[in-house]
Amino acid sequence: MTDQLEIADITSLNALAAGTNRKNPRIVAAGLGGKLMGTADMVKITAEQITEDSMESLAEKDAREAKKYATVKHISEKPWTLTNFYDHINWLNAVLVVALPAYGLYQAVKYPPPWQTVVLGFVLYVFSGVSITAGYHRLFSHRAYDAVVPVKIFFAFFGAGAIEGSIKWWGHSHRIHHRYTDTARDPYDARRGFWYSHMGWMLTKSNPKNRARADIHDLTADPVVVFQHRYYLVIMIVAAYVFPTIVAGLFWGDYWGGFIYAGLMKTFVIQQATFCVNSLAHWIGVQPFDDRRTPRDHVLTAFVTFGEGYHNFHHEFPSDYRNALKWYQFDPTKVVIWVLSKLGLAWNLKTFSQNAIEQGLIQQQQKKLNRMKSKLQWGISVENLPVWSREEFNEKAKQDGLIIISGIIHNVKKFIKEHPGGQALVRASLGKDATKAFNGAVYAHSNAAHNLLASMRVAVIRDGNVDANTFDLQQQFLDKEKIN
Amino acid sequence: MTDQLEIADITSLNALAAGTNRKNPRIVAAGLGGKLMGTADMVKITAEQITEDSMESLAEKDAREAKKYATVKHISEKPWTLTNFYDHINWLNAVLVVALPAYGLYQAVKYPPPWQTVVLGFVLYVFSGVSITAGYHRLFSHRAYDAVVPVKIFFAFFGAGAIEGSIKWWGHSHRIHHRYTDTARDPYDARRGFWYSHMGWMLTKSNPKNRARADIHDLTADPVVVFQHRYYLVIMIVAAYVFPTIVAGLFWGDYWGGFIYAGLMKTFVIQQATFCVNSLAHWIGVQPFDDRRTPRDHVLTAFVTFGEGYHNFHHEFPSDYRNALKWYQFDPTKVVIWVLSKLGLAWNLKTFSQNAIEQGLIQQQQKKLNRMKSKLQWGISVENLPVWSREEFNEKAKQDGLIIISGIIHNVKKFIKEHPGGQALVRASLGKDATKAFNGAVYAHSNAAHNLLASMRVAVIRDGNVDANTFDLQQQFLDKEKIN
Ligand code: HEM
Ligand code: HEM
Ligand SMILES: [Fe+2]
Ligand SMILES: [Fe+2]
Ligand SMILES: [Fe+2]
Ligand SMILES: [Fe+2]
Repeated sequence: MTDQLEIADITSLNALAAGTNRKNPRIVAAGLGGKLMGTADMVKITAEQITEDSMESLAEKDAREAKKYATVKHISEKPWTLTNFYDHINWLNAVLVVALPAYGLYQAVKYPPPWQTVVLGFVLYVFSGVSITAGYHRLFSHRAYDAVVPVKIFFAFFGAGAIEGSIKWWGHSHRIHHRYTDTARDPYDARRGFWYSHMGWMLTKSNPKNRARADIHDLTADPVVVFQHRYYLVIMIVAAYVFPTIVAGLFWGDYWGGFIYAGLMKTFVIQQATFCVNSLAHWIGVQPFDDRRTPRDHVLTAFVTFGEGYHNFHHEFPSDYRNALKWYQFDPTKVVIWVLSKLGLAWNLKTFSQNAIEQGLIQQQQKKLNRMKSKLQWGISVENLPVWSREEFNEKAKQDGLIIISGIIHNVKKFIKEHPGGQALVRASLGKDATKAFNGAVYAHSNAAHNLLASMRVAVIRDGNVDANTFDLQQQFLDKEKIN
Repeated sequence: MTDQLEIADITSLNALAAGTNRKNPRIVAAGLGGKLMGTADMVKITAEQITEDSMESLAEKDAREAKKYATVKHISEKPWTLTNFYDHINWLNAVLVVALPAYGLYQAVKYPPPWQTVVLGFVLYVFSGVSITAGYHRLFSHRAYDAVVPVKIFFAFFGAGAIEGSIKWWGHSHRIHHRYTDTARDPYDARRGFWYSHMGWMLTKSNPKNRARADIHDLTADPVVVFQHRYYLVIMIVAAYVFPTIVAGLFWGDYWGGFIYAGLMKTFVIQQATFCVNSLAHWIGVQPFDDRRTPRDHVLTAFVTFGEGYHNFHHEFPSDYRNALKWYQFDPTKVVIWVLSKLGLAWNLKTFSQNAIEQGLIQQQQKKLNRMKSKLQWGISVENLPVWSREEFNEKAKQDGLIIISGIIHNVKKFIKEHPGGQALVRASLGKDATKAFNGAVYAHSNAAHNLLASMRVAVIRDGNVDANTFDLQQQFLDKEKIN
C-alpha cells in the first residue's frame, strides 16, 4: 500500500499536453484561417470531439481510428490515379504556394521593375522572413523570449504576409513537429523524403489517424495571436499583396511592379526559404548533438533561412533563443532578438547553460566513438579466456611462444620476428612474466603495442592479478617507479 | 614454489636491449666517424666498458654515475661563462653544421650560378634527403622494409653527403630517441625547447650520466653499414663536396658553383630540413594517436622533411614504412619505398593493421572526451545520494516540487516555469513517478532534457529500481513500447 508509488496518469497528461482538458474548449481550426496550409485535417476539431478527447488517451484514439480505417481507406492511403488525384490534392494550398507564385514568376519575367520596387521587395522579404523566424518560430512557438505588444503586432502582420498560416495554426503544427519528430504524427515527417517535408505535406491531404495535438493554451491566451487568427484571411491579403502594391503605387507609381515583385515574388521566395527548415534542415549537414533523428546543422540552410540552419542544435535545445552558438555561424535572427532586448523591446531571453550544451556534444561524440569501437577487434575479452594453471603454462610456454603480461598469457610466436624492438628481447621473455619489462622497466610501450598485445591473448593464469586494462596499468607503473 | 612465476630478468634484458651481452662486443664509436655529430659522449664506449656493462643494469650504472657527478660536476651542468663556454661547445659539430654552411651562404650570395648548377644542387638535395628519410630512418633505424644492396649503397653514399653522421651512429641515436622519447636520455629531448632539439643538442656537450644504449646488432651485422661507418669521413667529404664539385666542373666547367651550391648549400638545406624532424615535428601540430608525449603531426613539417611530418603517427607505429596514411597527406618517402618495391628493389614493407591504427585514434579521442567530461557537471552521482522512504517523499513532494524518474527523486521546483513543454505537465506530475511520461508515453525527451534532469537529483527512493542512465532506459522503453 504505502509501497505503491503514485504513477503519473498518462491519459490525463496526454489530454493536458493536447490542451483538451479545459473547461472552455479551444477550437483550433476556426473558419478559413484554420483551413489554410493544409494540415486542417490534422488540427480540425470540434467542441464535441474535444470533450470526447478528454476522456480517452491518444493511444486509445489511435486504436479506434486504426480500426475505422481498416475497412474505410482514407484517401491518403489510396494510390494516385487519373480519377482520384483531384481528391488527393489540397487545392487551397496548391493555389497559395504553387499557382500564385507561378503566375507571379511569369509576370515578373515580362516586367522589369524600377529599382525602388526591388528595394521594397527585399525589405518586405526581410520583414516577413524575420517575422516568421524571430516571431512565429522562436517567440510564439518556443517562447524563447518575451516581447512588447508592438513587436508582436509587427510579427503578426508581416508574418501573415509570408502566407504560411496563422500563428496559432503554425505554432500548433510546429510544436507537434517537435514533439513527434520523425514519426507518422510529425506533420512534416522528414523520413518521407525531401519533397514531402518541403511542400508535399501541404499539397496533399493527410491521414486523420495521425492527427496529433500540442498544448497551445499560452497562444490562445495571447490577444495578438487570437486576433490574427480570427482575421487571418484579411490580414494575410493586406500584408502579402495590398500593402506592397499601395506603397509602390503611392510613392513611385509602380502598382503593378509592387504587386508582382513586392507581393507575389516576395511571398514565393519567403515560402520556399522557410519551407527549407522542414526539408533542407532535416536533410543536409552534421549532427553534433544527436543523430537519432533527422535534424541537421548546415551553413547553407542557415543562409537560406535567416539563421534557422543549426537545426540539430535547435531540436535539442528548442527554447534557446539562439540557433547558432559561435560568432562565425550565420544567425541574424538571434541578432535581431538580441538587439530588441538591448532596446528594451524584448526580455527573458532563454539560453541553455554551456554545461548542458557541452554535455550534449560530448554524449554524441561518445556515441560515435562507441560505434567505431564496436567495429574493431579488441582481442578476446578476459572473461571469455580459459584459466590455466602454472603447470599448464610452464609445459607449453617455450614451445608455443607464451609470455605473461598483467596475468594474461599471450601467444607471441608469430610476432617474434615482427617485433619492432627486435627478436632477442621477446625471445628472452618467453615462458616468463614480462609485465614490468613491457611496461617501462625495459620499454614503456605505446598504445599500439598494448592493442597488439591484446590480440595475442590465449588464457589467464590462475591467481595471476589479471588486469585487461594494460594502458592504465602502465601509467600507474610509470608513476610509481618514476622510470624514465 | 610452483606458484612462483619466473619473472623476466630486467637487468639482463636491459643488457640485451643495449646489445652489451655479446661475446664479441661492438665498438659503437670507432674513430672519427663515431665522434661526429656530437653525441659521441653518449655512445663512446670501449670494449672494457662494454664487458663491464654486461654485468650491471642501466639503473645501477645510472646510480653510480649520479654518485660520481654529485662531487664532480660535468661541464653540461655548469652555467655558461666567458671562461668556460669553450668547453661547452662541440667544436667539430659547430664547424660542420654552422661554420661551413655560413661560409657557403656568404659565397653563394656573391656568386650567381648557371642553371645547370642549380639543377644539380636540387637533384643532390633530393638524393641526400631521401637517403636520410627512406634510408637512414625507415630502412636502417626502423627496419620498416628490406632493400637490395645497391639501394643500400645509394642511401649510404648520398646519406653521408647530408653530413649527419654514419648510419650506425644515426640509427643508434634514433633508436634511443624512440625508446626514451621526452626523457633525459632522449638525445634530442624536446622538453628542452625547440632550439635544443633542433641543433642545441649537437652543438653542446651532453651529460654522460644520461648515456643510453639501444640494440643495433642488426646494423653491426650489415656490411654496408659497417663499411660506411669505418670510412665515414672520406665518404662524407666525397659525397658532400667532392662529387658535386667534379660533376659541375667536368660537365659545364662550374667547379666553384658546384662546390658552393651543390656542396655547401645543399648540405646546409638538407641538415636544417632533417633537423626539423627532431624540433618542428615535436613542436607544432596535432596529436591524433597519443598526447602523452611531444610528437606531433603537421603538414608543414611534412613538406620540409620529405614526408616525415606525421610524427605522432610515426612514434606510435615506428616500423610502419608509411608516415602518412591518407592519399592527400604529403609523404614522398613512402612513395619512393613503394616504387622501389614495385621495381623489385625493396620488399617486406611493414604496415600496422588498419584495426591497430583505428584503435589508436579511438583511444586518443576517448581520452580527450574523458577530459572534457570531467570538466562538466553531471549531477550528483547516484551512489552519493541519500535514500528516502516513500513516506519521506510523500511528505515533502508537493511542497518541495519533487518528481520521481527512474527511481531517483528530483527537485523541479525552480524549473517548473522554465519547462519548454509548459508548466501544466510538470505540475501534474509532482509527487508522482513520471518515468514513463518523461521517457516517451507523453514525450521522449532529448539528451539535453536528461542532462538537465540529472542536475536536479535530490535522493533515491527505497526499493525504487534506480537507474542513473536514463538515456539508455528511454531507448529500451521506446523500443519495447513502440511508442511514436
Ligand atoms: C610480447 C608482446 C610485445 C609486443 C606486442 C610489443 C610491441 C612493440 C611495438 C609495437 C613496438 C614499437 C614501438 C611502440 O609501439 O611502442 C615495440 C618496441 C619495443 N619493444 Fe616491444 N613488444 C612486446 C614485447 C616486448 C618485450 C617483452 C620487450 C622487452 C623485454 C620489448 C621491448 C621493446 C623495445 C626496447 C622496443 C623499442 C624499440 C625501438 O623503438 O627501437 N617488447 N614493441
Ligand atoms: C522534470 C523534469 C523535466 C525536464 C528537465 C524536462 C525538460 C524538457 C526539455 C529540455 C524540453 C525541450 C525539448 C527537449 O529537449 O526534448 C522538454 C519538452 C517537453 N516536455 Fe519536459 N521535462 C521534464 C518533465 C516533463 C514531464 C514530467 C512531462 C510530461 C508529463 C514533460 C513533457 C514535455 C513535452 C510534451 C515537451 C515538448 C514540448 C514541445 O516541444 O513543444 N516534461 N522538456
Ligand atoms: Fe525541425
Ligand atoms: Fe522549432
Ligand atoms: Fe621523434
Ligand atoms: Fe623514427
